[in-house]
Amino acid sequence: MTDYAKLALDKHKELRGKIAIVNKDQLDSKDQLSTYYSPGVGAVSSHLAAHPEELRDYTWTNNCVAVISDGSAVLGLGNIGPEGALPVMEGKAMLFKHFAGIDAVPIILDVHTPDEIVSAVAAIAKSFGGINLEDIAAPQCFEIEERLKELLPIPIMHDDQHGTAIVTLAGLINSCKITGRELKDCKIVLVGSGAAGTAIARLLYEYAAPEIICVDSKGILYQGRDNINAEKAKLLAYTNPNNVEGSLADALHGADVFIGVSQPGLLTAEMVQTMAKEPIIFGLSNPVPEIMPEVAHAAGAAIVATGRSDFPNQVNNALAFPGIFRGALDNGVRKITQAHKMKAAEVIAGLVAEPTAEQIIPPVGDERLVSAIAAVIR
Amino acid sequence: MTDYAKLALDKHKELRGKIAIVNKDQLDSKDQLSTYYSPGVGAVSSHLAAHPEELRDYTWTNNCVAVISDGSAVLGLGNIGPEGALPVMEGKAMLFKHFAGIDAVPIILDVHTPDEIVSAVAAIAKSFGGINLEDIAAPQCFEIEERLKELLPIPIMHDDQHGTAIVTLAGLINSCKITGRELKDCKIVLVGSGAAGTAIARLLYEYAAPEIICVDSKGILYQGRDNINAEKAKLLAYTNPNNVEGSLADALHGADVFIGVSQPGLLTAEMVQTMAKEPIIFGLSNPVPEIMPEVAHAAGAAIVATGRSDFPNQVNNALAFPGIFRGALDNGVRKITQAHKMKAAEVIAGLVAEPTAEQIIPPVGDERLVSAIAAVIR
Repeated sequence: MTDYAKLALDKHKELRGKIAIVNKDQLDSKDQLSTYYSPGVGAVSSHLAAHPEELRDYTWTNNCVAVISDGSAVLGLGNIGPEGALPVMEGKAMLFKHFAGIDAVPIILDVHTPDEIVSAVAAIAKSFGGINLEDIAAPQCFEIEERLKELLPIPIMHDDQHGTAIVTLAGLINSCKITGRELKDCKIVLVGSGAAGTAIARLLYEYAAPEIICVDSKGILYQGRDNINAEKAKLLAYTNPNNVEGSLADALHGADVFIGVSQPGLLTAEMVQTMAKEPIIFGLSNPVPEIMPEVAHAAGAAIVATGRSDFPNQVNNALAFPGIFRGALDNGVRKITQAHKMKAAEVIAGLVAEPTAEQIIPPVGDERLVSAIAAVIR
Repeated sequence: MTDYAKLALDKHKELRGKIAIVNKDQLDSKDQLSTYYSPGVGAVSSHLAAHPEELRDYTWTNNCVAVISDGSAVLGLGNIGPEGALPVMEGKAMLFKHFAGIDAVPIILDVHTPDEIVSAVAAIAKSFGGINLEDIAAPQCFEIEERLKELLPIPIMHDDQHGTAIVTLAGLINSCKITGRELKDCKIVLVGSGAAGTAIARLLYEYAAPEIICVDSKGILYQGRDNINAEKAKLLAYTNPNNVEGSLADALHGADVFIGVSQPGLLTAEMVQTMAKEPIIFGLSNPVPEIMPEVAHAAGAAIVATGRSDFPNQVNNALAFPGIFRGALDNGVRKITQAHKMKAAEVIAGLVAEPTAEQIIPPVGDERLVSAIAAVIR
């Protein structure tokens, strides 16, 4: 098996960074210098000072997204700070370029309160056509994204929340088709109520209003439980309609769907056996899922999805964000809405002509993805 | 004559921005994705969280500079705001790439007080290996640059100040050689005490301690004059040693050197005739200089420099900043000092093997510039 840790350290050190800037034209002649810099550029500056709404017609902002993190929740590594976050943000910039042709600039923030992060991002926002927030810890990530969306007239998306939610919804749409379910009638148990879990619950509920029961490390979230932070309390507005109490095992009795964005090995074969017939299991903890696919299948699971590329049905944000931002930039979308996310999920699901238990969502390399998603982000 | 205003508007609109991002390697295979993004990148992140001082070895920060402006003093256009500034910052990014191979990211700030600018730049600074401040108005530019240099362990330079000062010093070194002067014995009249003028005065004084008399729109700066702001008051610590009063014309009597970073047409032939024999005239107001070269020469000037590329002796910041940042990045320099600027000026002057009145500094295209300057920035 490839030692990606060693390979990554070696290649990063060899290349000394993974992205670079190129000029779109030469600067060899006096005419070129005078066109792209002084004195010619002065005419463009004067024009944009008078018509700031035309910024994108004359600058790279029409194709440029910032990938911004404070390093407070990097991959599965936790709060490792801005330096630790930068290789991931550069990697994300590579993905933006590779999949969607978007120029993405990695920005790491050395400030950490919501006020400071909102101020810093707002101060630099006009430099970009959109903002991909990345690897910012819950619950601050919710407030930061909401406030920035209020403040700024450009598309902003915290991908850890919404990318995961979109692809999860896409996978569930096809999983229901395969197993003969209606999403609205499903009982869904969702473990993990951080950034991704919260966004998944909200998107699933707004899409089809299924019964959702959220579970955290202390058990089922219910009205009246102690130790519920404000963001988890908000989940109770549309989850756990019968206000049941108990453990994960209690929640799973008769459930149609398990979605885990939590911890390796959390879900046992015994628990799967108590679920409804032919249950759907999304074990998205990465790299080690909540249950290994072969164990889940042996316990009766009809469909298993994970976050890994070496198993079928990889729930990968890269299915969604390139097309979302491609569409937002090209179609002048100023706010990415819940409706956009639902449409994107339907597009992703629709690209699988005949969904099977082994293929509920397209692979990341599917070349139809970006343009198909972009077409509905308008 | 080429209509650069029209050409610039057309080309900017056609290209929709002048720079783009490219990936340094492909992302076609699963191995590449797993090396540059998850899971491999996690090893790089963990390593940098433990060894943040190695950030440059594994990310593009080793070759990446931010070009940052709040749009408060763009070209000769004044305070036209961030949108108006962005085409200039993108143009500067092109120059960085073209001349020095540096990846430069244009950042426009939508905040304008020194406190806000310092906070925003400090918050994002770890994303970059250096910071080129650009087109920020005096006197705020002085405080902003000083505070950021105090705060941040990366090379920072406000190019409007220091780029101009370095190239002016280079030109004066050779002008003195040609006219048989010692810079330390020169009487220099400097008109304009904004960003560039202040930096020129300081660098010339620290380099050779000549007699410098600063002049602004109200006449000679002297101890006791009304209407002197704090930054201009600082200039009096090392200029106007005899505390003379009067007008520009008064200051120029017997002067060896005129340096203007002020207004078109300010210097008359009559004034030049009252200067010392074979005076040196730097009329750097752009695009229309303080005096046209042919007028200055007819009045007795031995050497005339301007900011224009269509006259001999163009004092152009692009002679200095690419090599300064190339050296600072490559040699791990954390602070660009006055000593660095003096060395850079000497290198620029030294590249003209036999200076003449028509060539006191090398042309912008001189391919020796960047590596020669970079070699002394350490």
